[in-house]
Amino acid sequence: MATDTRERILDSSGELFRRQGYMGTGVKQIIEDAGAPFGSLYHFFPGGKSELGAETIRRSGYLYGLLFPEYVGPDVELAAGVRGFFAGAAETLVETDYADACPIATVALEVSSVDQGLREACADVFDAWIDGGVARFTAAGIPRDRARALVIQMITALEGAFVLSRALRSTEPLEAAGEAVAAAIAAECG
Amino acid sequence: MATDTRERILDSSGELFRRQGYMGTGVKQIIEDAGAPFGSLYHFFPGGKSELGAETIRRSGYLYGLLFPEYVGPDVELAAGVRGFFAGAAETLVETDYADACPIATVALEVSSVDQGLREACADVFDAWIDGGVARFTAAGIPRDRARALVIQMITALEGAFVLSRALRSTEPLEAAGEAVAAAIAAECG
Repeated sequence: MATDTRERILDSSGELFRRQGYMGTGVKQIIEDAGAPFGSLYHFFPGGKSELGAETIRRSGYLYGLLFPEYVGPDVELAAGVRGFFAGAAETLVETDYADACPIATVALEVSSVDQGLREACADVFDAWIDGGVARFTAAGIPRDRARALVIQMITALEGAFVLSRALRSTEPLEAAGEAVAAAIAAECG
Repeated sequence: MATDTRERILDSSGELFRRQGYMGTGVKQIIEDAGAPFGSLYHFFPGGKSELGAETIRRSGYLYGLLFPEYVGPDVELAAGVRGFFAGAAETLVETDYADACPIATVALEVSSVDQGLREACADVFDAWIDGGVARFTAAGIPRDRARALVIQMITALEGAFVLSRALRSTEPLEAAGEAVAAAIAAECG
């Protein structure tokens, strides 16, 4: 039960940060959304919003990172898998009325210059995503340096496409970005 | 003098939104940063923070959009100009201790799901950037549909690279993203 409450708090903060950012989300809103007693936040996160924020970023980032291997399994052709990954992101965006995109990016832009602890949590997530991608891309036979550049191209394309797609309420940026990344991978593998 | 005050307020809000977002910036901080009397905010922006926010987005977006033609003038080879544009963005980021990136993206991610007026201001800026880019890319002989896809690839790459570069405090994402876009343009023009 205690663990349930802690996880419900983290689920709620993850969802609220993703949709409206860290700065615009109050701890009261998180607690209410989680259906948790107010004191439980400081029970589980003695450091308050900042500690909850860092843990939310690491947990949401880890969970989001698990989506990539679902699309790009070991038996899937890499470019096709990446195309599917972007298409899946576009589908989720439409299904959630252009709200659910990356769980990290909004917070990353808000805090990078003002909260070192939260910035480092975001940096750890991005580093882990890059490392995971490089492992998959090198397994496809792409040399390590080139794999790293392509993975960074992929993650930056996804993050930037989320910014434009949410603002424009259109999947066109995600489609154009995904197609460009898939083409670059196909050229490398071909 | 009145106009000066109004412009100083817009300069300050643009700078603060860029660095720490819309939600984390209070009107008091904007007024203090601008060295303006408190009443002047509601004198110039009767709609308060929301009206100031929308005008800041449109003005900052317009000014930022003027940077692109500086790097990619009519006599500059397109891929080389785009490479220079990304390199210039990386240089500014380092010079400002990884603070000054896109004036729109932080706000766009924060408000897209919660403030329709501000979201539309961001969308208008992105649409204007896309249109400006398409004009330049078609002038380089790239067919319109392909030009639009490449311009969207370029803007999404830049926006996403800013997210990663600020969080990681590294120019590597901007370099990888810029190189990928330049390569795609060169392949099209070659």
